[in-house]
Amino acid sequence: MALVFLPALARMAVCGGTHGNELSGVYVVQEMERQRKDLLDHYIDQNNFLNQAVNMFFSAVNCPITDSSPYEVWRAQELNNLLGLKGSTDATDIICDLHNTTSNMGLTLIHYTSSDWVTLHICKYLQTKITKVPVRVLVLDVPISDAYSLESVSKHGFSLEIGPQPHGVVRADIYIIMKEAVDLTIDWIHKFNSGTVFEGGDVETFKFIKSVDYPRDPETRTLTAAIHPQLQDKDFCLLKRGDPLFLSFSGETVNYKEEETLHPFFINEAAYYEKGIAFHLGKKMMLTIPTVQVQKD
Amino acid sequence: MALVFLPALARMAVCGGTHGNELSGVYVVQEMERQRKDLLDHYIDQNNFLNQAVNMFFSAVNCPITDSSPYEVWRAQELNNLLGLKGSTDATDIICDLHNTTSNMGLTLIHYTSSDWVTLHICKYLQTKITKVPVRVLVLDVPISDAYSLESVSKHGFSLEIGPQPHGVVRADIYIIMKEAVDLTIDWIHKFNSGTVFEGGDVETFKFIKSVDYPRDPETRTLTAAIHPQLQDKDFCLLKRGDPLFLSFSGETVNYKEEETLHPFFINEAAYYEKGIAFHLGKKMMLTIPTVQVQKD
Repeated sequence: MALVFLPALARMAVCGGTHGNELSGVYVVQEMERQRKDLLDHYIDQNNFLNQAVNMFFSAVNCPITDSSPYEVWRAQELNNLLGLKGSTDATDIICDLHNTTSNMGLTLIHYTSSDWVTLHICKYLQTKITKVPVRVLVLDVPISDAYSLESVSKHGFSLEIGPQPHGVVRADIYIIMKEAVDLTIDWIHKFNSGTVFEGGDVETFKFIKSVDYPRDPETRTLTAAIHPQLQDKDFCLLKRGDPLFLSFSGETVNYKEEETLHPFFINEAAYYEKGIAFHLGKKMMLTIPTVQVQKD
Repeated sequence: MALVFLPALARMAVCGGTHGNELSGVYVVQEMERQRKDLLDHYIDQNNFLNQAVNMFFSAVNCPITDSSPYEVWRAQELNNLLGLKGSTDATDIICDLHNTTSNMGLTLIHYTSSDWVTLHICKYLQTKITKVPVRVLVLDVPISDAYSLESVSKHGFSLEIGPQPHGVVRADIYIIMKEAVDLTIDWIHKFNSGTVFEGGDVETFKFIKSVDYPRDPETRTLTAAIHPQLQDKDFCLLKRGDPLFLSFSGETVNYKEEETLHPFFINEAAYYEKGIAFHLGKKMMLTIPTVQVQKD
C-alpha cells in the first residue's frame, strides 16, 4: 500500500448550531467550551491545536433557520473571513460541522470529495471505533468551489449528521454519540500529528445519485401521501423494483418502479419538505485510500 | 348503574393544524375533506351531522406557530365566532382538536373536566377499540371558562395528542392511528345519536399535578442536561424516588427526589423547551361514569 505524507493539522473548528434547531451540536460545542481549560489546553501544548473557532461558533446558535435570509448570507461571509478564506492557504485545516436529522440515519459523515485522504481516514477511524450505531460515509462529489456548506470553507471538512432526532429537541442518546464522534475525530488528529501511521484500505461509501419528491396534488402542491411504513426509518436499505415508497392518505401504496437498485437516505427529513425531497437515493461505492503519515518538518 | 339521558350531538368539528407544524391532523382533515361526499353526506342524511366546520378548519393549516401573535389572537376570535360562542347554547356540540407531540405518548386524549360524560365515554370507546398503541386519558381539571384551548369553545371537546412524531414531519404509522381515532369518535357519535346505550364503568385517567423544568445554567438559562436515556420515551411510567430524570452534558445523573410516586408525560416535547417544561407529572385517578343514552325528542 502506498504511503502518502500529509501536512500536520494545526487548526480545527467544531461547529454546532449552523441550523439553529438541530440541538445536539449546540450542546456538544457548549460542553467542549466548558471542558476547554482541561481538554484543549492539553492539545494546544502538545499539538499546536487552536480552540478559538470553537468559541466563536457557539454564538451561531440562535441564527434563523431559513437558508436565504440576509442574516445567513452575512453570517456565511463572516464565517468565511474567520475560518477561511475558502480555497486559500490560510484556511482552517479542518471543520467538523454538527447536524441532526429526523431521518433514522445513525451517524453519517458527509463530505464533498472522494479523494480527501484526511477526512476519509477519519471516517474509517470512526467506523472502526463506534459500534453502538451504524456509521456511514456519504460522498457528494462536487467541485469544492461549488460546495455550499460550512465545512467547504476549510481545507478538509465534513458534516456529521446524526438521527433520528426531532428538530428543537436534544436526546441524551444522540448527544452521547455525537460527542463520542467529535472526541474520536480530535483523537485521530492528535495521533496523526504525533506521527502515527494510519493504514490504508477500503472504505464503504454512498454516492448521491438523485432526489425523490412526495406525491403531491398537481394544483395545490400539497402532499397526498407519506413515506410508506415499510420504508420509514429504513435509511440506507437496498431499494428494489416493487418495494413500497409511499402510502397515500387514502390508503394506496406507491411502489419503486426503476430497475436500478439504490439506497435511500434522508428519508422523511423535516427540513426537506419545502425543498421537494422525500428522500435521496445513493449508490454504494468502495473507495481505496492510501496509508497516511504526517510530514516531518 | 345509573342511566343518564343526554342531548343528541348535532354539530361536530374536527380540527387539524391548530399548531401548524403538527402535520398528522392537517392531513387527516385534508383526507376527510376529500371523503366528504361519501362519508359525511351519509351522516348528514341519517344523523343530522354538519360538516361545515371541517371544511373551515382546513384553512388554519398554515397559521404561525407562536401562541401570542396578533394573527393567532384574531384567529381565535374568528374560530370562537364560527364554532362558539364559548359557553353559549349555540356552541358546536363537540370539537376534536388534533395534535402531535415529540413525546412517546401514544394516543392521549386531553380534556378539561372530569365530569363530561360524553367525552369520557368516547375515551372509553377508543380505549376498547384501539389496540396498536396505548390510549390514555388526561384530565386538566380547570373551570371551562379558564380553559385556553380550541376545544373549550364547544360544549364537549377534547384534544387528541399522538406521538412520537417530529414537528414538521408526517409519519404514516402515526397518521393511520390518528385517522382511526377520529373515525371511531364519529362512529361513537353516530351510534349514540342512533339510540345505542353505552354502559358506564371505570375509566383510568391521569390528572395533571405539576411541571418540571430542565436543569439550567443560573445565569444564561441555557440547558445543562437532557432527559435521562432511562426516562426518555417512557411517558406514563411510574416515577419513584431515586429514578434518573436528567443526564447532564458532562455526564452526571440527576435523580427524582420526592417521596410521592407520579407519572411523567410530555417528556422532551419540543414546544415546551421555551415554556420551561421538561415534562409534566400526573397522578392516576379512576373515574366512574354512568351509563348514557340519547334523549328522546
